[in-house]
Amino acid sequence: MPAALPDTQLQLRSLVTPEGELQISLVRVPVPAPASNEVLVRMQATPINPSDMGLLLAGVDPATLVAAGSDKEPMVKGQVPAAAMPGFKARLGASLAVGNEGAGVVVAAGESPEAQALLGKTVAILGGAMYQQYRSMRAQACLVLEDGTRPSEAASCFVNPLTALSMVETMRLEGHTALVHTAAASNLGQMLNRICLADGIGLVCIVRKPEQAALLREQGAKWVVDSSAPDFAEKLVDAIAGTGATLAFDAIGGGRLPGQILAAMETVLNRSATEYSRYGSPVHKQVYLYGNLDRGPTVIERGFGMAWGVGGWLLTPFLQRIGLEATQRLRARVAAELRTTFASRYTDEISLADALKPEVIARYGKAATGSKFLINPTLDA
Amino acid sequence: MPAALPDTQLQLRSLVTPEGELQISLVRVPVPAPASNEVLVRMQATPINPSDMGLLLAGVDPATLVAAGSDKEPMVKGQVPAAAMPGFKARLGASLAVGNEGAGVVVAAGESPEAQALLGKTVAILGGAMYQQYRSMRAQACLVLEDGTRPSEAASCFVNPLTALSMVETMRLEGHTALVHTAAASNLGQMLNRICLADGIGLVCIVRKPEQAALLREQGAKWVVDSSAPDFAEKLVDAIAGTGATLAFDAIGGGRLPGQILAAMETVLNRSATEYSRYGSPVHKQVYLYGNLDRGPTVIERGFGMAWGVGGWLLTPFLQRIGLEATQRLRARVAAELRTTFASRYTDEISLADALKPEVIARYGKAATGSKFLINPTLDA
Repeated sequence: MPAALPDTQLQLRSLVTPEGELQISLVRVPVPAPASNEVLVRMQATPINPSDMGLLLAGVDPATLVAAGSDKEPMVKGQVPAAAMPGFKARLGASLAVGNEGAGVVVAAGESPEAQALLGKTVAILGGAMYQQYRSMRAQACLVLEDGTRPSEAASCFVNPLTALSMVETMRLEGHTALVHTAAASNLGQMLNRICLADGIGLVCIVRKPEQAALLREQGAKWVVDSSAPDFAEKLVDAIAGTGATLAFDAIGGGRLPGQILAAMETVLNRSATEYSRYGSPVHKQVYLYGNLDRGPTVIERGFGMAWGVGGWLLTPFLQRIGLEATQRLRARVAAELRTTFASRYTDEISLADALKPEVIARYGKAATGSKFLINPTLDA
Repeated sequence: MPAALPDTQLQLRSLVTPEGELQISLVRVPVPAPASNEVLVRMQATPINPSDMGLLLAGVDPATLVAAGSDKEPMVKGQVPAAAMPGFKARLGASLAVGNEGAGVVVAAGESPEAQALLGKTVAILGGAMYQQYRSMRAQACLVLEDGTRPSEAASCFVNPLTALSMVETMRLEGHTALVHTAAASNLGQMLNRICLADGIGLVCIVRKPEQAALLREQGAKWVVDSSAPDFAEKLVDAIAGTGATLAFDAIGGGRLPGQILAAMETVLNRSATEYSRYGSPVHKQVYLYGNLDRGPTVIERGFGMAWGVGGWLLTPFLQRIGLEATQRLRARVAAELRTTFASRYTDEISLADALKPEVIARYGKAATGSKFLINPTLDA
């Protein structure tokens, strides 16, 4: 173990008080000593994913956060909306560590041979509490990266890549043959486009701006539809007709888009109908909401028959559904294609301390496609 | 074959023209001669179910219909909303017979022994085009009723009874243990209540008026919640907590109720949660929309985690899913409990000609719980 290893480290925490105050703080905690089958990873790159926002911000509008605490014990505060409080009952008063995934270098290891074998290796890890300087992890759970891989390249090995792959797995498992994806210019959307191109799967990419459409087209996407265009509805029908998609994944959650997608699918299905079915097409049409970019209500204007569903979709339950072996197959593909299919781009690299600055939170908390933040805890040293 | 059998008969038809005009008419068509394995049923009782409305009215507001045609060839007309027209593409210009189910007496039969055996019997039948005076049907498809059963008692043997039973079957098949039902004071709702009481299944009955709540309580319902009451939200949570329901069937379709039901389920599930799950309870919560009493949009205020679904539900695909044997088991139960569990009540008995009067359509087309119309085509003789 290098002599330089400190006794304590910085860790980012999020707390909701029983009175509804959100407190995000940087606290000093012990550096854990790895158990026999564990390693200690010096964190160098951990992304701020949309899936981290719920735990971190607890539904607080990031623009309303104010600085509190001191230089030594920095903190930001905000007020949780009253309507959101019932959902946080089980976390009230608990100071929670944050961060789903990240990568770094193994700087210490337990005595087991498999832990020792990882010393000095760059690894990607998953499992919460990544927004800190040192994270212990079971050796077996580490994804060991090829020599020469930089931690920033491996920071997002799990959430986005496995989500994109699992969308395609869901498609196959539930009997669909093509996909619709919204917020399609996101890091995740670009990955999904690369997967679908590689696997020969029809993908309808819905974006919200012309420059996002151009970006995806440059990357080879065939069916790109801009929801801000006046002819969006017709172009969506054309793209669904061109692909045969009857399944959609929507990152936005709120608004009318899920219903519009179902209506476009039904229009395409009815085009080829040979006789009138009073209940609409019998082909099941499904939209899964996997994100919450728009927290407003989902407004579904029915009129696409009775064979449809809208519902939540989450990665972890899906991986449990397909089982360990199938999950390992997906992970192996991520490792093999980390610098191609599953490459992520970041617009900003910040320290843990930066992640507590109200003006920085206002930027990464905006949930805008096109900006993507990476925390590098070595900047706090 | 009785000498009195006429050559022609009256049949109710619904037509949407390519220009979007709805025409409901009474036309004279031949009385069919039954094939070898068929019988001819003189229709005496055929209900106007919510599931008949789509084909009959094509989305036209019944209050806007006007009389047209002559005494000899009566007709009513109305304008189909432009927004509904794409869904009717496959029926434009086709004059369609209407009516899902009904009962009557077998007045003629083909030469096969099984057809001959039904002569004089009262039977219930399913299969469309019931709003006429004589309907031919395969002998095997007839549900033969106990001697002494009046056709009016057997008019609704299929749609409501099989739907109510299939809701309970769906519950079992998809791993739930109790149910929520909206529009619970309807004929279907009262049947479902009797089934759940008999089978010991927890049922939350959501109604829209105090008198409907009283009606269901008189019939033994334990968990009745009135959505017009100021404490609806709390009472709904109490009822869901009391039953453990994680599945709901909603007849209304539009509005905020499906989301409110999911939120109440989530509140109950979180009560017993021992640790904070940032994505909400992992227990799947489902609302199936099986009706369209409110044609407005379904507005889902999310905030009940990610393990949820809302979707359409239809009887026929469900019966196909469970297969012939399971369906026969459900039908046998209906026949055995026709005068008890599956008894229907009608507020109005009308002729085929009455069914074309604008003031009558305005009443049966209102989709109001508490009124239920039965067509008796013998009144047209």
